[in-house]
Amino acid sequence: MAAISGRPITIEVRSARHSQMINITAAVAAKVPDAYQGICHLFCLHTTAGLTINENADPDVVTDLLAELDRLVPWRQPHFRHGEGNSAAHVKAMLTGASVTVPVADGRLQLGVWQGIYFCEFDGPRNRTVALQLIPEPAP
Amino acid sequence: MAAISGRPITIEVRSARHSQMINITAAVAAKVPDAYQGICHLFCLHTTAGLTINENADPDVVTDLLAELDRLVPWRQPHFRHGEGNSAAHVKAMLTGASVTVPVADGRLQLGVWQGIYFCEFDGPRNRTVALQLIPEPAP
Amino acid sequence: MAAISGRPITIEVRSARHSQMINITAAVAAKVPDAYQGICHLFCLHTTAGLTINENADPDVVTDLLAELDRLVPWRQPHFRHGEGNSAAHVKAMLTGASVTVPVADGRLQLGVWQGIYFCEFDGPRNRTVALQLIPEPAP
Repeated sequence: MAAISGRPITIEVRSARHSQMINITAAVAAKVPDAYQGICHLFCLHTTAGLTINENADPDVVTDLLAELDRLVPWRQPHFRHGEGNSAAHVKAMLTGASVTVPVADGRLQLGVWQGIYFCEFDGPRNRTVALQLIPEPAP
Repeated sequence: MAAISGRPITIEVRSARHSQMINITAAVAAKVPDAYQGICHLFCLHTTAGLTINENADPDVVTDLLAELDRLVPWRQPHFRHGEGNSAAHVKAMLTGASVTVPVADGRLQLGVWQGIYFCEFDGPRNRTVALQLIPEPAP
Repeated sequence: MAAISGRPITIEVRSARHSQMINITAAVAAKVPDAYQGICHLFCLHTTAGLTINENADPDVVTDLLAELDRLVPWRQPHFRHGEGNSAAHVKAMLTGASVTVPVADGRLQLGVWQGIYFCEFDGPRNRTVALQLIPEPAP
């Protein structure tokens, strides 16, 4: 991504492990102006990482999510051809998706009570970037 | 989600089974004003449910979708740590995703012929809420 | 989808194989006006195909993605009930998702260095249609 005109806004994420779910909810909320109405679009600029929304309370949930992805998509498989050896991370990125969109009302992310926004690292540790855009919703 | 300023608009869903795909296309279409141009953004406010778009004709398709998710992500697994015991539902929510965006032209959802919008219940029965936003697309 | 008012814009895709990932990045970029700021919303109008973002460099990656989806969701399974026999394609469409949203700044798709936009055919060969919308992001 070329950083043109200062847009999109970016959030920098530093992962510490090979697979890791990093709660970025507070970093996202900090970029939303007061009284803003619309959607917040987040886009992961990488092909071995993703974004998802899931439970923000019990940390065992995200541990279980990563463990289950590992079980579903084992790291080493005889049919994988990609020379870098990280095809499993590419598959996990496809399954989680590169972007999330979150409603915003009166400047606040309109997440459910138990929802947090997670950056999903599948081939870390690395420095990662998430693009953030704010798209307004006109008054009805 | 705090209900501030009457936005986002919400759609209430009552699931009747533990796993269930509920066609909400008509409920969504009813919220779209005449002549509206843009996207309709739907956001599931829960972490054990999701939203997806799939076949609206043969009900066997959504039966097969749920059965295949059950096969891929069995409910009980020795590695799951989350105390509530519903980690499989959290995984399924991650795989389907929390939001869908649908094109709208002249006030009508621009779905393909065979497409319907489904609320995906993975840990019901429960009362659920979907947030709806309308983001305009200016004339080209 | 009814083609009303010339919107959404559409991109036509012709798949050549039963399962295939087709890089549509250039076709999408060609629809984005100069100096445009916002998001580009792409929506797949089919229930046995999807859209995803993944590596644009080594073609072995998308080969591995398709092979892994085939391993995860085998084509023939005794529990599938749908009479058309293509339930696996419907499952894959659910796992990849029907839409992607990409940031745009100064008229250019703001993809990461290794990212391309792919149409994912899961039950081809067929003629397919992707709807494209441009939603502006006002200056901050």
